[in-house]
Amino acid sequence: MNIEIKNVYALIDGEIKRHSIYIEKDTITGVDNIPEGFKAEKTIDGTDRLVIPGLINAHTHSYMAPLRNIADDMPFMDWLLKGVNPVEDRMTGEDAYWGAMLAMAEMIRCGTTTFNDMQMHIHNTTRAVKESGMRAVISRGLVGDKYDKEDRRIKEAFEEMPDGEGTNGRLTFRLAPHAPYSAGIDYIRGIVDIAKEKGLGIHIHLAESQTEVDNLKKEYGLTAIEYADKAGCFDVPCIAAHCVKVTESDIALMAKKNVSVVTNPASNMKLGNGFAPVPEMIEAGINVCLGTDGAASNNTLNMFHEMSLLTLIHKGTHDTPVCIGAKEALDIATKNGAKALGLKNVGEIKEGYKADLAILDINTPSMVPRNNMLSSLTYSANGSEVDTTIVDGEILMEGRELKTIDLEKVLHEANAMMERLA
Amino acid sequence: MNIEIKNVYALIDGEIKRHSIYIEKDTITGVDNIPEGFKAEKTIDGTDRLVIPGLINAHTHSYMAPLRNIADDMPFMDWLLKGVNPVEDRMTGEDAYWGAMLAMAEMIRCGTTTFNDMQMHIHNTTRAVKESGMRAVISRGLVGDKYDKEDRRIKEAFEEMPDGEGTNGRLTFRLAPHAPYSAGIDYIRGIVDIAKEKGLGIHIHLAESQTEVDNLKKEYGLTAIEYADKAGCFDVPCIAAHCVKVTESDIALMAKKNVSVVTNPASNMKLGNGFAPVPEMIEAGINVCLGTDGAASNNTLNMFHEMSLLTLIHKGTHDTPVCIGAKEALDIATKNGAKALGLKNVGEIKEGYKADLAILDINTPSMVPRNNMLSSLTYSANGSEVDTTIVDGEILMEGRELKTIDLEKVLHEANAMMERLA
Repeated sequence: MNIEIKNVYALIDGEIKRHSIYIEKDTITGVDNIPEGFKAEKTIDGTDRLVIPGLINAHTHSYMAPLRNIADDMPFMDWLLKGVNPVEDRMTGEDAYWGAMLAMAEMIRCGTTTFNDMQMHIHNTTRAVKESGMRAVISRGLVGDKYDKEDRRIKEAFEEMPDGEGTNGRLTFRLAPHAPYSAGIDYIRGIVDIAKEKGLGIHIHLAESQTEVDNLKKEYGLTAIEYADKAGCFDVPCIAAHCVKVTESDIALMAKKNVSVVTNPASNMKLGNGFAPVPEMIEAGINVCLGTDGAASNNTLNMFHEMSLLTLIHKGTHDTPVCIGAKEALDIATKNGAKALGLKNVGEIKEGYKADLAILDINTPSMVPRNNMLSSLTYSANGSEVDTTIVDGEILMEGRELKTIDLEKVLHEANAMMERLA
Repeated sequence: MNIEIKNVYALIDGEIKRHSIYIEKDTITGVDNIPEGFKAEKTIDGTDRLVIPGLINAHTHSYMAPLRNIADDMPFMDWLLKGVNPVEDRMTGEDAYWGAMLAMAEMIRCGTTTFNDMQMHIHNTTRAVKESGMRAVISRGLVGDKYDKEDRRIKEAFEEMPDGEGTNGRLTFRLAPHAPYSAGIDYIRGIVDIAKEKGLGIHIHLAESQTEVDNLKKEYGLTAIEYADKAGCFDVPCIAAHCVKVTESDIALMAKKNVSVVTNPASNMKLGNGFAPVPEMIEAGINVCLGTDGAASNNTLNMFHEMSLLTLIHKGTHDTPVCIGAKEALDIATKNGAKALGLKNVGEIKEGYKADLAILDINTPSMVPRNNMLSSLTYSANGSEVDTTIVDGEILMEGRELKTIDLEKVLHEANAMMERLA
């Protein structure tokens, strides 16, 4: 559908000004300049609206959305072993489908257009993602000691890829050795080899907790980052989630190897892991992007909440109000995520870029006054200002009404699931 | 009006279960037990609703709401001297009225029913508060060196009090020596004397920044808390905002003197002041409550955002997931605030308590599944779930529509004000 967003405030190149945006099929084909022969099939009045690039949630586990309240305020091992794992084990593929739907309903409502998902249930998630219309990068979480290409998980990792390739329109695939504590060096090497062969990227958890790095040091004499490097992770495009407990030389190594780091502030605090050295990683030239992690450790998938945390906590830990400002946070939550995920022409509002957009109602107290809407976006918006969400030129929400997801049904199924499983 | 909230999930004594709530005039007159002769003039269907005590924002400066984006991501002295102060100085009383209206619109929409306000513009704020129907505790910020009862600010502090007394229905008054760096010891003593005489409480900023405590140590050999104690602040009911830079003995002193501390996590991080030792203050027996501070240093007045920060950041600083849980955060944001402000029968859902309530729509992704709504309230809700806000039995918002504030007009006036002032 050809869409015109007329005379709207738009966030372009770090500045918010009035523009008109023209969309043909899946692409932004004009900013201010009306494309030749353009005929609007739909016109959105931008008078009281602000359009931003759709937010990119660079690390999550969508199927876990119904587990959001399963095990809060308890020690980490209880959270994992008594809270999350038993329920996770009882989830069927169908449960994971509804879980992903709940996650995507929440994300679309808060202006997220793309997410990077590490999965146990790759088939049902892929099905849900296709129905929702979101852009996603999906990987099967891989756990093991010795690489065996006949292993069920390894096989599943490829089963949704068309002809084993990594992209399929809005869907892209990666390979996800889970973490150093759950995937042996040889196992990861086997995965990296096949990633190289097929041109796929890696998605891995690294240096999330002190226990993880202490154990690796004891057993291998390596930091988590060194472990991943030794396993070859950084020889292919790599997204490393967390990187909370990293040393100066870890940071230098990741910068040198062009690793993208996904910081997950809420999850890292909630599980008692602390604060990732984000300003230091940025200073070292690392491409830092932003994620919510799964709902079981957050408990929300709201990227506005995460942007707010990102801008606040490092000011707190670094004793300065000048640290990760609004503009930087928005870049981290949009174009840095696209870069990390290898998504070309995504994450900015520009001619030739994919029409992945969130349109906010700025007639709300949190967005008034309008003197500095960059600040409003990160410090006072809570995500409920998002009125319309567009992915690949398709309207997934308008007037806060979801167009591709039956919200009532999803909420009903999620409630019923947890009555059964919890 | 007699209101029945029928078969609703309600947060009572730290547990969420189905109840029916009966309201007559300004008071909850029945929980589950229908009061004798009760006739509902309005019935609210509680099927998909959760009612909680209205949130209490225990430290803010409402007139500053339009300054929310005035000076972000800059050094503290630039924020204050180049950003906030010049605009604040140009604000008229009428501007402050619209500022307070903007603040209250935001607060009511996020389920806040009471706020504790330190003011420059006491007359216009009081007028706005009366029109809005919110419950508020108002104090004129007092700055000076030597006490003089003929001083303009001191006189203004009393001008809205009926017969000089501290209460007037939903409005209560306090006296507010601004801070140790802006109010001399003798000046504060004079204020405390008159507070004693009139039975008023004190509201003061204490130990907000390292600079403040360093300067006091150099000049007086005292911590900020010792300074306030020496000035007599703790000999009357005292609410101390911030208390970020406090020592162990400061904490012991405040506990001994029954000082209530308002923690303002967003503001403390945003201005680079760090993290207040909230778990330690609670451990010492201090009544800790929660505030947003003014919008110029937050930039939102959303207590759901603040509760989320409260539960997350101390887990991060204390390296444990077991630190200020959901139940504790909700107590801090409700009944602890009422206790700090000396508001009797406020802050809980109980027979005989004031009908100050927030009713949430729980058919939203953030509130689903329903297995642990205590967690949802603090970790995943963003405030937009609040459908209905009731103060003193009066409905101030229903179906997210404000009943006492003309939102469109307020947003227009706030935008126009900042076009003029910024």
